[in-house]
Order: sequence, then C-alpha cells, then structure tokens
Amino acid sequence: MDPLDRDDLRDRVGKALAAFLSGQAPRLDAISETLGPLQDAVADYLLGAGKRLRPAFCYWGWRAAGGADTDEVVTAASSLELLQACALIHDDVMDGSDTRRGQPAMHRRFAALHRGEDWHGDPEGFGRSAAILIGDLCLIWADELLNTSGMPAEALRQAQPVYDEMRVELMAGQYLDLLEQALGGGTVESALRVARYKAAKYTIEKPLHMGAALAGAGAEDLVRYSAYGLPLGEAFQLRDDVLGVFGDPASTGKPAGDDLREGKRTALVALALTVAGPAETAVVRRHLGDPHLSADGVEQLRDIIVATGALDRVEALISELTDRALAALRAAPMEEDARGVLEELAIAATSRAV
Amino acid sequence: MDPLDRDDLRDRVGKALAAFLSGQAPRLDAISETLGPLQDAVADYLLGAGKRLRPAFCYWGWRAAGGADTDEVVTAASSLELLQACALIHDDVMDGSDTRRGQPAMHRRFAALHRGEDWHGDPEGFGRSAAILIGDLCLIWADELLNTSGMPAEALRQAQPVYDEMRVELMAGQYLDLLEQALGGGTVESALRVARYKAAKYTIEKPLHMGAALAGAGAEDLVRYSAYGLPLGEAFQLRDDVLGVFGDPASTGKPAGDDLREGKRTALVALALTVAGPAETAVVRRHLGDPHLSADGVEQLRDIIVATGALDRVEALISELTDRALAALRAAPMEEDARGVLEELAIAATSRAV
Repeated sequence: MDPLDRDDLRDRVGKALAAFLSGQAPRLDAISETLGPLQDAVADYLLGAGKRLRPAFCYWGWRAAGGADTDEVVTAASSLELLQACALIHDDVMDGSDTRRGQPAMHRRFAALHRGEDWHGDPEGFGRSAAILIGDLCLIWADELLNTSGMPAEALRQAQPVYDEMRVELMAGQYLDLLEQALGGGTVESALRVARYKAAKYTIEKPLHMGAALAGAGAEDLVRYSAYGLPLGEAFQLRDDVLGVFGDPASTGKPAGDDLREGKRTALVALALTVAGPAETAVVRRHLGDPHLSADGVEQLRDIIVATGALDRVEALISELTDRALAALRAAPMEEDARGVLEELAIAATSRAV
Repeated sequence: MDPLDRDDLRDRVGKALAAFLSGQAPRLDAISETLGPLQDAVADYLLGAGKRLRPAFCYWGWRAAGGADTDEVVTAASSLELLQACALIHDDVMDGSDTRRGQPAMHRRFAALHRGEDWHGDPEGFGRSAAILIGDLCLIWADELLNTSGMPAEALRQAQPVYDEMRVELMAGQYLDLLEQALGGGTVESALRVARYKAAKYTIEKPLHMGAALAGAGAEDLVRYSAYGLPLGEAFQLRDDVLGVFGDPASTGKPAGDDLREGKRTALVALALTVAGPAETAVVRRHLGDPHLSADGVEQLRDIIVATGALDRVEALISELTDRALAALRAAPMEEDARGVLEELAIAATSRAV
C-alpha cells in the first residue's frame, strides 16, 4: 500500500481542503459575486490529485510523538497544502512557467480568462497580478485553516514558532535560489544550501516538527526528528533535481528537461560542471537556461550529466542520505506504527518512481 | 497635537517594528549572510516616516473597549504595518510603479542591486521576483509579530477571526481593483465597492475591530464601531482618490497625477464620466492610464474633473461620510479619552492635508 494513503490520509486531506474552501465561498460571494473565478482557481489547484507529502509528514510526526488519529490534526496538517500552493503559484510567476501539475500555471489561467473575456489591458499582466494575489490569499488561508482546525489552543501555541520558522525559511530559500541563478556559477555547496532551505527542511523536517510540536514534543525530540528529516529532505530534493532533468513528463506534470530550460543551478548541474572539460562546459553554458532549448539540446545536456559521472554521484548521495535518515529513524524513541510508516515514506519520497 | 502621536504611539510603533526586525536579523543570517539586503530593505521600508494609521486605529479600538495602555498592545497593533508593507510591495509590482513613499519601489530597489552588481539575467525580473518574496515575508512576519506580541493567548484567539477577515478582504479588494481596470468602464457604484474592500474596511474599520476584539469586545460593540469606521474609511479612501489626482507630490510621495497615469478607476473619475460630454469623455479615454501622460495631459484631466463637478461632489461626500462617522462615534458607549482621540483621527484622516 502507498504509505501516503495510510489512515486514508490523502483522501482526508482532500476532504479537509474541500470543506475549508466551501466555507470560504459564501464569504467571497458576500464581497462580490465576481470573485467566483478566484475561488474556482484555488479549488482546481488544490483538489486535484496531489501526493500530500507535507501533510503526511506533519501527521506522522504527530503520531510518532504519541498523538491519536483525529480529524482535527488532519485538518491542521492540510494547511501545509495551502502554504505550498502559495509557494508554487508565486514561483511560477517568478519563473514565467507555463504549466504546473500538468495544468496551466495560475498566471496563465488568468491571462487566458482575460483574453477570453476580451478585457482591457494586457492579459499577461492581469494574469501575473491575479496570481500574486491568489498566492497571498493561499498564504492567509493556510493560517486560517491551521487556526480553525479545532486543535486545542495550547497545541497551536506550541506549533506556531515551528510554523513561522518554516515559512520564513521557505521564502528565504526562494530568495537564495534567485540569487544563485543571478550569480551564475553556483558551487555544489551553494546549490545544496539553496535546496536545503527551499525544499529539504520545508518538505520534510519542518512538517514533521510541526506535527510533533502539536503533540507537545520537546526540543530534544525535535532534534531527533531532524536527524531523520533533514538528510531525507536533502535526498528528496536531489531526487527532484534528477527528475527535473531525466523525469517522465507523464509523472512530473512538467515538460521533459524543464529544469534545464529554466536554468536551474542544481547540485546535479554544479557537479557536472566541476568535472566537465572545456567543450562540455561551453555546451552547458550555451544551453542551460535557454527557454527555447530543443529536445536535442536537452539530450546533449543529459549526456554530459551522465558522462561526467554527476548522475551516478547524485544517485549515490541520495542512497547515502536516505540510509542515514533510516538509521536515525531506527534509533529515535517513537510510536512503532509511526516509525513503520515513516520508513516507507522515506523510501517513497526518494525512489525513482515518485 | 497630531492625534497620531497621542500616547507617543508613532514612536512606539517604530520601536516595536525595529525590535522585531533586529530579532529577525540573526535568524536570516544563520540561513545565509547573503540575506542582508533583504533584511535592510524591509527595515528601510518600515522604519522611515510613516503615519502608522492602521496601528493607531487598532490601538484606539483597544482603548475604546476598555484596554489599558501597554507595550504589548502597541506591538500587536504594529503588526498591521507589516501587513500593509506586503500589500504595498505587491501592489507596486502589479502596477509597475517606480516609487513608494518617495523612495524607489521594492522591485526597483532590487533591480538596481542586480544592475549594480552586474549579475546574470534580467535585472527587472530579478527585482520583481525579490519583491514578491519580500512581500510574502512581510505577510508572514506580520503574523509572527502579532503572535509574539506578548498579548494573552485568549486575546489573540478573539482577534484572529477579525485579522483573517481583514486579510482576505484586502486581497479580494485588490483583485476587484484589477478587475475594475480590466473591465474598463467602471460605474461609481463599483468603484466605491472596490474602495470599500481594498482600503476603507482595511484601513479603519478592521484595525478598530481588531483592537476592540483583543480587549474582548463582543459582536454588538463591533457593530457600533463599524458605524464609525466604515463611513470614515470610505471618506478616507475618497480623500486618497482626490490626493492621487490633485495632491502635492511632496506630501504624497508620488509624482503628481500618478493615479491618472496608472488609469485608476476611482469614484472621482467615474463621477466625472457620468456627467462628461462626448468631447470630454474622449479626452478621458485617451489620457487615463497613459503611463507617459505629460503634465499638460494631467492638467486637462484635472480640469474635466473640476468642470464636471465631480470634485465638488466627492468633497461633499467626504464631508457627509465624516459627519456620519462622527455622529456614530458620539452615540457609541466607549471610554471617553479614546472617543476624543478617535474624533481627532477622523478629522486627520479625511482632511485635505493628510
């Protein structure tokens, strides 16, 4: 069984999000009935298929720390999907990405609405502005869903600092990512640091901490969970980097080689450049970040990443980090059923199929 | 004495913001020392001169409902300045505005940094992306400042729904504003509705409610405060519309006639268009929203707004709304010293000088 489906979690997260959004509809309607497209867009974005990885780590962090299975904690964990929606919607505006999860990116959706309605002004500008506001709204709604989850006030009070730290690290990591692209020649070390803040901590370690903090776990427990969550998060991010270059569009929801067209300075690319000869380096410099890069160009870059041994080294790093996470998991005191699921989640989050 | 300075409020809000931002510096530094410019930018943005209008209404809402003067409530009220910073930074990205408060807009500041450092890629794109992330960070920090203000948990719990509603209305209002520009021919009614959600409720009514809710005020009290805050907020917004067309750049911090170049569909413009003849209408349609509109073009539009009687009608509406707010203020049971300051604030927020 897919560990993400344990305790029917994926289904319950979807229901919690749907219930929250239905509750928002009359509120938006009371402001103006013209807000319908905004509500629909968020619903389409959130209620489609999703791995619900962050809610899963939050929920199992709660269970690991001795919390019982309740709908309230599932609702609280679901708020992370709204936070993630904000991050992705704004990220797509910043990158000018066309698609997300196989659908048009939020700014493209609103540009298309503008064009379809033949409104005044620039459709692209309208799309970007609407997407900025919808991202803001998701960030606010994430908060509201957490606060109205029905969790006891004391539990929320304990989780709030973790939640704040996670959100600040997320935005700081996104800025470091921008800076990395702007500086051009990223080192392996700096690429890994960006990945740590932008994704690793925020996808696994912090959701796990949040669940544990909701259950009243102390600082020592959180450190033990980090020994599992942090290397696992980095392995997850490295897997994501590999999929961004070699992944199947059918499962990633993005065109093949999209990270290469975006010019992402991942550890994978940085590793290839440390080994590449002058001719290979010239090819990378020419192709990386070219938004119109052909399938042939993507293939050339892939060949270099393989030939330099960068892919093998990243695969080895993923295995090593995952093993380290699993060893820490085995050593930490926690509820046994949660330990079992966290082990399966570690494998699911870093395997080639995700 | 300026009512905004009563109880040294302006000074204390500045200090609360400075203390919060100093506390964030080591946190950002621990992530990466390259985050310095981000920290500096928020500090420059927040710690310069500011009217601190929203914290003032929040604080006096608290006092009106019987709360005592404490540093904790001033800190909680200061969080509204971080929320406002998010709104303005994102608004300037959406409008492509060059300046804010007489300084370069946030996205321009980061475009200049990119250009000055001769980084890779497009400076304007980098500036916009950085500004989106800094706006997000301010939205998150607003929350954190409120939650760590030292206010009792029960007070925060009571204020949270008001805070959430305010934030949702703000973003919805911004979207309605976009839509209003996209639809082109705004009616007076729709322009007033945009102004209500984007500014009126969010500047006065909701901050007042937030302060009162922190002090434990019930639903009935909030309704009474709305009878003052809502018409006053609308009067404030209409004054802002007038200043956007006729204001002195030295006091508005924006170039003269900037709202006309941005093509803002304010009630002032909508009123002028309901009365304008065909020749005047043609001039408005040609000039409104022209980013390169000359001083002469601005003068032509101003003349039409005056000649159609729109300016006089808006001034009359401002007086009428302010009088209605003041009558409600006199009728509501509240602490007498707060009533006095709220009366002075009403006049300050809607007078020609603000």
